Amino acid sequence: MNFVPKTEIESRINKFQRQMKKSEMDGALLVLNADVFYFTGTVQNSVLWVPSEGEPVFMVRRSVERGRRESPLAHIVPIKSPRDVPEVLSRFGYTQSGRIGLELDVLPVNTFFFYQKLFPDTKFVDVTPMVKDIRAIKSAYEIEYLREACRTVDNAFREIPMLLHEGMTELELASQFEAVLRRNGHHGYNVMRAFNQGPSIGVTCAGESGGTPSYMDGPLGGPGPTPAFPHGAGWRTIKRNEPIIIDYACTVNGYTVDQTRVFCIGELPDYMVKAFEDAVLIQEEILKLIKPGTPCEEPYLLALELAEKMGYKDSFMGRPGDQVRFIGHGVGLELDENPVFAKGIKTPIMPGMTFALEPKFVFAEGAVGTENTFLMTENGPERLTITPEVITYLK
Amino acid sequence: MNFVPKTEIESRINKFQRQMKKSEMDGALLVLNADVFYFTGTVQNSVLWVPSEGEPVFMVRRSVERGRRESPLAHIVPIKSPRDVPEVLSRFGYTQSGRIGLELDVLPVNTFFFYQKLFPDTKFVDVTPMVKDIRAIKSAYEIEYLREACRTVDNAFREIPMLLHEGMTELELASQFEAVLRRNGHHGYNVMRAFNQGPSIGVTCAGESGGTPSYMDGPLGGPGPTPAFPHGAGWRTIKRNEPIIIDYACTVNGYTVDQTRVFCIGELPDYMVKAFEDAVLIQEEILKLIKPGTPCEEPYLLALELAEKMGYKDSFMGRPGDQVRFIGHGVGLELDENPVFAKGIKTPIMPGMTFALEPKFVFAEGAVGTENTFLMTENGPERLTITPEVITYLK
Repeated sequence: MNFVPKTEIESRINKFQRQMKKSEMDGALLVLNADVFYFTGTVQNSVLWVPSEGEPVFMVRRSVERGRRESPLAHIVPIKSPRDVPEVLSRFGYTQSGRIGLELDVLPVNTFFFYQKLFPDTKFVDVTPMVKDIRAIKSAYEIEYLREACRTVDNAFREIPMLLHEGMTELELASQFEAVLRRNGHHGYNVMRAFNQGPSIGVTCAGESGGTPSYMDGPLGGPGPTPAFPHGAGWRTIKRNEPIIIDYACTVNGYTVDQTRVFCIGELPDYMVKAFEDAVLIQEEILKLIKPGTPCEEPYLLALELAEKMGYKDSFMGRPGDQVRFIGHGVGLELDENPVFAKGIKTPIMPGMTFALEPKFVFAEGAVGTENTFLMTENGPERLTITPEVITYLK
Repeated sequence: MNFVPKTEIESRINKFQRQMKKSEMDGALLVLNADVFYFTGTVQNSVLWVPSEGEPVFMVRRSVERGRRESPLAHIVPIKSPRDVPEVLSRFGYTQSGRIGLELDVLPVNTFFFYQKLFPDTKFVDVTPMVKDIRAIKSAYEIEYLREACRTVDNAFREIPMLLHEGMTELELASQFEAVLRRNGHHGYNVMRAFNQGPSIGVTCAGESGGTPSYMDGPLGGPGPTPAFPHGAGWRTIKRNEPIIIDYACTVNGYTVDQTRVFCIGELPDYMVKAFEDAVLIQEEILKLIKPGTPCEEPYLLALELAEKMGYKDSFMGRPGDQVRFIGHGVGLELDENPVFAKGIKTPIMPGMTFALEPKFVFAEGAVGTENTFLMTENGPERLTITPEVITYLK
């Protein structure tokens, strides 16, 4: 087990405290697993108090023993229920009036009502935008784990030629591919912050399955095994001469990277080969465009313009009526982090940000395209994913 | 793809409407995937309006095409954003004042604020307890899918003697076991409604791994591959003469069942063999006790009493300090449905309810116990899981 070092946790807490002071907040109560892990180094059934000044207090319901083993925080306090939170904070000398942050984008309404009763003199504000901005800039420590996840996902993609054969179902291929990821430490799913969207397992789709839309906010849908789980691999049999698109995020040591590659048994129609090459070309144009400071919407606007010029108006990022309006998304402890490359988002891309770019074309007969994970450095984007960017043909 | 029949959806909507009328509600706006699937037969990025009287309106952002193909509802209306909901409801002649239900146990605070602005004259109430009670009573159609999930999970458990060998890691065994589930249509994870708890993948733990506590609200924890995903299988190597406990839920066609079995390469210490037999004995005593009308807390109180008499005070349902206080939970579209068998819950167990019973003993050296999924019938509990209830020994 790799525990998050104390210096790493301290630096994250310091950044958060500086931002809270700037916003005249007194502190934040965090509960979401991803945020709690970021600031404590562990995931427990717990409430984390981070004051704008002073030591954090990590209140753990279950498991205290494990929380103490994994987190370098100084104050790890057992609680029986979140009802105990005000008493614990008083004990540590923290006042409970003032402006306190909660994760209002994910916190359920009933839990919010509960905290309102528990802290009658507190003004609660949404702390998520602040936490997301801090988390968007990765440390050297985090980038190493993202690189490790890229090696893990590469390892699994390299197995596909050995696993793939004509006549197997998408689910058979997916199950074996996922098993390679999983035995190398993949969590089994990828966390999404957006309500009702995640978690994401990944897409293994052949032929027109790749053109099946879904509720998920991405260019690829997929039939899934049932209307109750309508995404990714389904029961369709893999045939010759059709695109098999594999779009998988992989989470190792908490960190998620995202990658897409196309495979084919036999040959692809010329227009699909061309579309794949055009998707790679769009990616390369985006990489030339972006540098520290580029507004987040620019890569999307450029991609859209290029795609339309190339004649892909009706297949760019989805089927007509189901096209998504972004070209990339941040990755880290969640699959849907900042930055988001979509129209109207003018915040700058900054060094330390890690993101996936995924230009894709979706035809009724199947989907092709690419996806890689990048790090923005002072000198421009660096590609983290390492799998060769080609269509892999099998005989 | 198996689509939910129109009669099934109509009967669910009718039950819901009757309950809403009794509670003087004007309708409900549902958004959670599990609830939307239950009342529409499909999962889309959508908002479902169910009035207490009249036809439901299913407002779909993405994918309309797919929603129309999969759902038998009459009114499936495209929307660009949830902002369009009031306009659509007006068009169908529904008033927007009065008492309207929302899923307040899962709806994020920011989304709630959004709906409050959108419906300034509405009093929102929590509709989740009502929806959970309706969903807890399964139809014959649903029970068939639960039986199918039991066959799928049995199939995977029967493969374990072929997959398991000394020296492999827990993750290697888990990955191969999960692959068997997945190629047979398992979704890849099991949905949990409780905030921050799910989804659940399952537990494959050997020796003292089985005694490692976690944040998850169950008797078994497990180290997981990393503190960022601290549950279930980890990097530990499987050895001879120790318990290997496999606790997996499996979701097929939307329906989840839960099962636990113990395996061993070699022999187990006598006290563990005895504890396994005692866990089965506790299960059998519970099955003799419960019938339609039995209060939900009784199976837990009986199990606790028996376990303490048998001398398992410190190992029953977890390690000291991390013991959970229930003996079973409802299963269906979610892994944590009603009924919950825990102290203080006095609602009656009713025919049509499906639930898992999981008496387990957790020692520092490993965990043993059992888990099966049952249906309450008019004549008492019927066991749905079909895997032989024995410790499987390998040479």
